[in-house]
Amino acid sequence: MKAINLEEKSSKFSDHWSPKAVAMLNDYHVRLVKMQGSFVWHKHDDTDELFLVTKGQLTIEMRDEAVHLTEGCLFVVPKGVEHKPSASEECWALVIEPAETVNTGDAGGDMTIDEIEWV
Amino acid sequence: MKAINLEEKSSKFSDHWSPKAVAMLNDYHVRLVKMQGSFVWHKHDDTDELFLVTKGQLTIEMRDEAVHLTEGCLFVVPKGVEHKPSASEECWALVIEPAETVNTGDAGGDMTIDEIEWV
Repeated sequence: MKAINLEEKSSKFSDHWSPKAVAMLNDYHVRLVKMQGSFVWHKHDDTDELFLVTKGQLTIEMRDEAVHLTEGCLFVVPKGVEHKPSASEECWALVIEPAETVNTGDAGGDMTIDEIEWV
Repeated sequence: MKAINLEEKSSKFSDHWSPKAVAMLNDYHVRLVKMQGSFVWHKHDDTDELFLVTKGQLTIEMRDEAVHLTEGCLFVVPKGVEHKPSASEECWALVIEPAETVNTGDAGGDMTIDEIEWV
């Protein structure tokens, strides 16, 4: 058993919008993701989704408002709420959600990652 | 809905070994805790427990080994594994676990927090 260094794990991949699992917490995945540009509008009907920004800045648009996260900020997108993450410059985040959660939620499409890789 | 700045939230309390809730993720609590000195040996029979160090350093002793976490490191203590967190200097961490989780697990005693406060 060993500690997981988030920066060291983040250095092992460079693709955007492709979450990598680093740990399990019961039946939840602890994932790292690098983001740049805009993701798709989507929602997760069965779960909340936690974002914790570890580098850079992230905007999470929702239909009625937007939340802006700087380094060291977290936000939990409530279950069923449509959202669209975006980052004008590269942003790194920790994402925690049930392991079966699909990154694009109900939206599907080209940005869907069918199988979450581990780093 | 707004982002939660972990450093700003951490500035709102100073007591050690008394986790404060800052968010819910489904039925999980996202908690902040400040630690200094040694906690009690205990285990959580029904859940894993996630620690993410945001400031300082934390050692999590288990019966057969110990894990040392520096800032930006996370560790998930597996369900049922006896552990004792300790920090020679003040350490700040994020802890994620089901909302009903008692900080001292099966051990009870003076360090038990019966009701988790929110900050």
